Amino acid sequence: MKQYPSNIIDGKQYAALMLKELTEKVKLLKLSFNIVPTIAVILVGDNPASIIYVRGKLKAAADCGMNAATVNLPSTVTNAELLNCITALNDDDTISGIIVQLPLPTHIDQKNIALAISPDKDIDGFHPLNVGCLYNSAIFDGFIPPTALGCLALIKKCDVVLAEAHAVIIGRSNIVGRPLAALLLKEDCTVTICHSKTKNLQNITSQADIVISAIGIPAKLSAKYFNPNAIVIDVGITRLSADNSKIVGDVDFFNVYDKVRFITPVPGGVGPMTIAFLLSNTLKACCRQHHLTDLYV
Amino acid sequence: MKQYPSNIIDGKQYAALMLKELTEKVKLLKLSFNIVPTIAVILVGDNPASIIYVRGKLKAAADCGMNAATVNLPSTVTNAELLNCITALNDDDTISGIIVQLPLPTHIDQKNIALAISPDKDIDGFHPLNVGCLYNSAIFDGFIPPTALGCLALIKKCDVVLAEAHAVIIGRSNIVGRPLAALLLKEDCTVTICHSKTKNLQNITSQADIVISAIGIPAKLSAKYFNPNAIVIDVGITRLSADNSKIVGDVDFFNVYDKVRFITPVPGGVGPMTIAFLLSNTLKACCRQHHLTDLYV
Repeated sequence: MKQYPSNIIDGKQYAALMLKELTEKVKLLKLSFNIVPTIAVILVGDNPASIIYVRGKLKAAADCGMNAATVNLPSTVTNAELLNCITALNDDDTISGIIVQLPLPTHIDQKNIALAISPDKDIDGFHPLNVGCLYNSAIFDGFIPPTALGCLALIKKCDVVLAEAHAVIIGRSNIVGRPLAALLLKEDCTVTICHSKTKNLQNITSQADIVISAIGIPAKLSAKYFNPNAIVIDVGITRLSADNSKIVGDVDFFNVYDKVRFITPVPGGVGPMTIAFLLSNTLKACCRQHHLTDLYV
Repeated sequence: MKQYPSNIIDGKQYAALMLKELTEKVKLLKLSFNIVPTIAVILVGDNPASIIYVRGKLKAAADCGMNAATVNLPSTVTNAELLNCITALNDDDTISGIIVQLPLPTHIDQKNIALAISPDKDIDGFHPLNVGCLYNSAIFDGFIPPTALGCLALIKKCDVVLAEAHAVIIGRSNIVGRPLAALLLKEDCTVTICHSKTKNLQNITSQADIVISAIGIPAKLSAKYFNPNAIVIDVGITRLSADNSKIVGDVDFFNVYDKVRFITPVPGGVGPMTIAFLLSNTLKACCRQHHLTDLYV
């Protein structure tokens, strides 16, 4: 088995532990109540990266004992047809969670898609009601985007006092940057959000206790972007080869890893955690739909 | 008329201009369609500060030609009674916008209150659906908390390129800090959110191009917290005397005002803008409810 240096955060290992626990809970749910959490993935068109991602999600779901089904729609699908498909899945009591794999063809109105998925089945955490619950801390416990949850979980493995930390997030997507900012703020971090327009990025990141990068520019961040005490979470995934064999993150890993306190590798860092939290969201959705909320805690 | 030094951002004056425009639109609405935007304010108990705030809102609404009504409920009101009251106002077609004046007695479940107000009448922008629409930029145009809108409007008066600016927000409330962070991020600012747990606050604020303080600690921020080029927006309001005659902000104004580029006074800065945007939200709600969306643009 590959041995990492001790400052490398092994997302694959943590995800495996989570999946093991999830598997136990899914088994219990099946034995006790004859319920099987079920994911429906809507895949529009045949984007090769999307097919790889969907395959990964389906395999992980199956490994945990969940059911998973893909609804394949042609890239010519109309908005109305896609909405009808979502409505049917919303109304289907056997479906726990619904994913519409991104990106969607440009003729599809993504706003309406996010609004169409029932908030109770929105395991990606994109529906504005779930987003609002995340940001207005005082409301109820909605669904949170799995990648943001995965990043937070890895940060918490690093023996850091979050209330004393300044976290700098690079990238402001609805999938990672924005929700992660909300999560870290809830944990009492001081939070800065940087992005493509930010001036003096290096000046900002080099002061940070925690840097999370989610920009998708391969090896953009060299060692000078980080102080030696930093925790570095690399969400970026860029495929440098068609056969998927060479995947790199936003951080110039081999230049950086021994010059910071902790760092996630790519692959094997945030990626596996994303899938684990997607399945954890699915279990949560399933348990809620069956009023078995004790089980997913 | 009081003349401010030229670097003082005169919120009172800008608010007056907004209210003048709103008054014209309200007049047009009445003349053309016999519609009068109407605010319902629910006031629970007799907190003196709340009574002052509500009185200010009602007066401003009346000055603009809007209708406004207060529903007074005793501090012993039950959750069910308060929810019933909100439902009645939701169902009343003559009501454009609903405010539940904060703070509420501790026995009231504030989460349910925020969820109970129809998102279409939520002129304070507290419903999670409106919050979610603000944070997930890709969704539709909901209601945004008026104080956050007021701060952004004042910043925009300052001849600043927001995409090149680093804004530091002190305070992470759902009323100011969090929504303002979302607004500034949409404007391409780099945004840092600080709060009571933040270490080295001065180190962070003194690097900022824009500092917005919303912590409610009188005169907490002296000149050393700001660089000479900073724009300072002071949202804090502390009443130092029972008769309401002495109101101060978070910034030690007389020590700071001539050492920064722009600054808002307290009173007369963000406060009047909050009321103007509350009424602007009310007009927006009214126009939407009557499918007259052109009018509020």
